[in-house]
Amino acid sequence: MKLPTSVTIKEVGPRDGLQNEKQSISTADKITWIDSLSESGLSYIEVSSFVHPKWIPQLADAAEVLKNIRRKQGVTYAALVPNLQGLERALNVEVDEVSIFMSASEAHNRNNINKTIEETYPILEEVVKEARAAGKTVRGYLSTVIGCPYEGAVAPAQVRTVADRLFSMGIDELSLGDTIGVGVPTQVERLLEELLPHFSANQLAMHFHDTRGTALANIVKSLEMGITIFDSALGGLGGCPYAKGASGNVATEDLLYMLHEMGIETGVDVDDVMTSARLIENIRGEKLKSRQMEIEAANCQENRKAGV
Amino acid sequence: MKLPTSVTIKEVGPRDGLQNEKQSISTADKITWIDSLSESGLSYIEVSSFVHPKWIPQLADAAEVLKNIRRKQGVTYAALVPNLQGLERALNVEVDEVSIFMSASEAHNRNNINKTIEETYPILEEVVKEARAAGKTVRGYLSTVIGCPYEGAVAPAQVRTVADRLFSMGIDELSLGDTIGVGVPTQVERLLEELLPHFSANQLAMHFHDTRGTALANIVKSLEMGITIFDSALGGLGGCPYAKGASGNVATEDLLYMLHEMGIETGVDVDDVMTSARLIENIRGEKLKSRQMEIEAANCQENRKAGV
Repeated sequence: MKLPTSVTIKEVGPRDGLQNEKQSISTADKITWIDSLSESGLSYIEVSSFVHPKWIPQLADAAEVLKNIRRKQGVTYAALVPNLQGLERALNVEVDEVSIFMSASEAHNRNNINKTIEETYPILEEVVKEARAAGKTVRGYLSTVIGCPYEGAVAPAQVRTVADRLFSMGIDELSLGDTIGVGVPTQVERLLEELLPHFSANQLAMHFHDTRGTALANIVKSLEMGITIFDSALGGLGGCPYAKGASGNVATEDLLYMLHEMGIETGVDVDDVMTSARLIENIRGEKLKSRQMEIEAANCQENRKAGV
Repeated sequence: MKLPTSVTIKEVGPRDGLQNEKQSISTADKITWIDSLSESGLSYIEVSSFVHPKWIPQLADAAEVLKNIRRKQGVTYAALVPNLQGLERALNVEVDEVSIFMSASEAHNRNNINKTIEETYPILEEVVKEARAAGKTVRGYLSTVIGCPYEGAVAPAQVRTVADRLFSMGIDELSLGDTIGVGVPTQVERLLEELLPHFSANQLAMHFHDTRGTALANIVKSLEMGITIFDSALGGLGGCPYAKGASGNVATEDLLYMLHEMGIETGVDVDDVMTSARLIENIRGEKLKSRQMEIEAANCQENRKAGV
């Protein structure tokens, strides 16, 4: 099994996790949580989104959060921006990296950002240009790279077409999202076989939702194909917008368990991450569903029974 | 990705699932459930265990269950037997296949069956001999093939030593159990690299518990190495005896989703399996934790909200 010796984990919990919250989480609690994430060895935290608060009220406090977190040296604090107005708000609070986003499938793109794929390009192009002019790196998010909730299977060639356009705008990295968590390793392999002849492996990140439990299997296949950047969210936060109550992002702590056991370095401290997971669990007041948190809860209960 | 075109799924829910139940499930309910499993296209169902009821009271009704299920042609109905007394009880009710069991690690073997590994061999040897004399095929279960709750990592060479002894007794197939669900694909690969030069792939089955979410990833690696027999339990039943409340066996329906999406045939009907999962969920009165059941519950809630 040919595997990379180290990978980068990009923690998207504060954005992709919290944007689906039903309950309101205070700005102060978000800041406390992000500050604890900063102490765990993570080198990248996606902090919030500058999408208009009308669309994602959960993240309306993006500017306040970015202004007040304790920035740790060596950690990149990123945020999503949908357009120039969003970019301006993000630059005002000195975001480190800007993330733009669109979908590989026409129907999801239209449903999510109310534009066709063709209409989306010029808007993102402007954002990339201005962000780069302001000295920021830019990450692209491409959603529904394997399956679309409206169109079904998405052809790898279609993903490549959109990826081509995004890279030619000047993005630094592209995160490929299995947004609805339908992917299996054979599909991941076909997708990467389509993309890797054209893009460098270190410009591509994989972003798996674990809706059907296949995220870790998909990550192993990605690792075997040379991918070294993975998005995840503490506690598997995020849910699935198309099946409320179903599982969300692959859980950072479960991914860490697997990577470390496979001898792959991440620079992230599992104990610190678990502390941070307990923190957001307490803030949300709901049990996190990652396997590591489940095991911890089980052991804790056993210890209570045993009087430890 | 080199994969088999079809695999056999061995449903262990009625035994490995129900043996960990806190609540009591009636014999009639077990029979109803097993009868529904028989209609789903599964070719192998592990029905119960003839371990002394003192040790597993949950399965004390093994004989009643085996006597009263509706046997479908083409389905193998198997049961665990620990010794000659258990075998006799199993043969009395015409079990199709007999399963013997032991552990690859000394401490787990001692803890589980109160004997050293060396002391276990002659007992199993008798059982295999008598079972074969009675015209039955014999399956071996080897627990803790990757990690042991008492000893930690288990060396692949140790697994091979025990496997050698079991095959030389005359077992037909060996199911390799990651009993506590600690394994990751690199470890699965090392284990199978040790075993496959000595045993045929079609004599080996993999039995993964999904305690840490790695079961499907481990199954993909096993498939790539030529394994075509996998144990699973509907709804991920079974839990973890070492962390009560944690996840159990890999869920049959989640495994089916992945295999079918990968183009691998199983002969099992997903809809029928889901019907059977809902049945045992109702009997147990507790939400099953498989991803497929989670998605179904989420969709069901959405439909209720939408008035569908």
